[in-house]
Amino acid sequence: MSEFEPTERTRVKRLPKRAHYDRETVYGILDSAFVCHVGFNVDGQPYVIPTNYGRTGDTLYVHGSAASRMLKTLSGGVPVCVTVTHVDGLVLARSAFHHSVNYRSVIILGNARLVEEPAEKLEALRLFTEHVIKGRWDDVRQPTEQELKATTVLAIPLEEVSAKVRSGGPLDDEADYSLLVWAGVLPLETVAKEPLPDALRKNDPPVPDYLKNHRR
Amino acid sequence: MSEFEPTERTRVKRLPKRAHYDRETVYGILDSAFVCHVGFNVDGQPYVIPTNYGRTGDTLYVHGSAASRMLKTLSGGVPVCVTVTHVDGLVLARSAFHHSVNYRSVIILGNARLVEEPAEKLEALRLFTEHVIKGRWDDVRQPTEQELKATTVLAIPLEEVSAKVRSGGPLDDEADYSLLVWAGVLPLETVAKEPLPDALRKNDPPVPDYLKNHRR
Repeated sequence: MSEFEPTERTRVKRLPKRAHYDRETVYGILDSAFVCHVGFNVDGQPYVIPTNYGRTGDTLYVHGSAASRMLKTLSGGVPVCVTVTHVDGLVLARSAFHHSVNYRSVIILGNARLVEEPAEKLEALRLFTEHVIKGRWDDVRQPTEQELKATTVLAIPLEEVSAKVRSGGPLDDEADYSLLVWAGVLPLETVAKEPLPDALRKNDPPVPDYLKNHRR
Repeated sequence: MSEFEPTERTRVKRLPKRAHYDRETVYGILDSAFVCHVGFNVDGQPYVIPTNYGRTGDTLYVHGSAASRMLKTLSGGVPVCVTVTHVDGLVLARSAFHHSVNYRSVIILGNARLVEEPAEKLEALRLFTEHVIKGRWDDVRQPTEQELKATTVLAIPLEEVSAKVRSGGPLDDEADYSLLVWAGVLPLETVAKEPLPDALRKNDPPVPDYLKNHRR
């Protein structure tokens, strides 16, 4: 797949060998997470808010209540940063200094666009649901017109984008390799546990296959 | 434990029943994660960068290379936002609209202070290591003077702080409870897998107990 063009703002300066600008890496990181952290300013104070997202092609969608300050602020087209981070493991070196974390992250800079066209808005909502749990959308009650009105959807173009990836074991100073210290990686993984049925249920259909096989 | 005083900027306006300002909740969320997302501005553009942190009392420490743009920017005392998020589960409602996520998050607003006093700096570095893996610090080679110089440590006071927590099952519209749709929570958990010893090892001490029993 093709590459995003690094700009002065997205080119990774520190540890550039960790940088990736190709769509395959960027899409892979975005599509295997579902929570992003959105950065924006109100009166010069930065705010960082966790939220869900969906993606199709080079467009990332975020959504929320029409009453949310974040969505009202971003609807104005102010500069935004969206960051998605996977933590893959703890890197244990022989010195405190060389401890590290294995991670994959994507940083998107840009300006949000308010999605007003009903078909695009509904498709974005479908993407959110399917992004989190593939197969869910067709199973549930679709949004009413009132629910659509109460929801704000924003589109953020994937234009100024960079990914940063650290993987592998520790890199110690030569002299430290002879220290009698356990070194290596403690891999971390997010796993889904047994689904908990709603205590308020009246009907009780079985757990759907798309949940049984869910992996994050 | 006592409460943080909500300010105009940290008082949760949307879904205020999810808000918490007590130290017990805030400390609990901060102490059970180790990656935060730091928001700051460069030329009016917000940036959100994932990084590690440590905490003692009402001080949060972040650190990194003295060459990092984030740390150079924040050393100037500009406004910063630090957000820590745990994702605890997917909340599956009977309607697309009422789908949600169970999460615990803390948002800290403030200004960073450059830590220059050597004893505080070293103690902050100890906190980082111990925060990620309790028991590790005494096992590894301590930082040299040169390593300390190459590391910037910033302190961010816990003053303007709020936590937001969503837990429990889906809340559906009354009419939707009769739909034949599986509803409930898919719990998510970050787990540590089998430690992977460094391929470059020369000595091979056994996996230490603090890793065997590691839980995140």
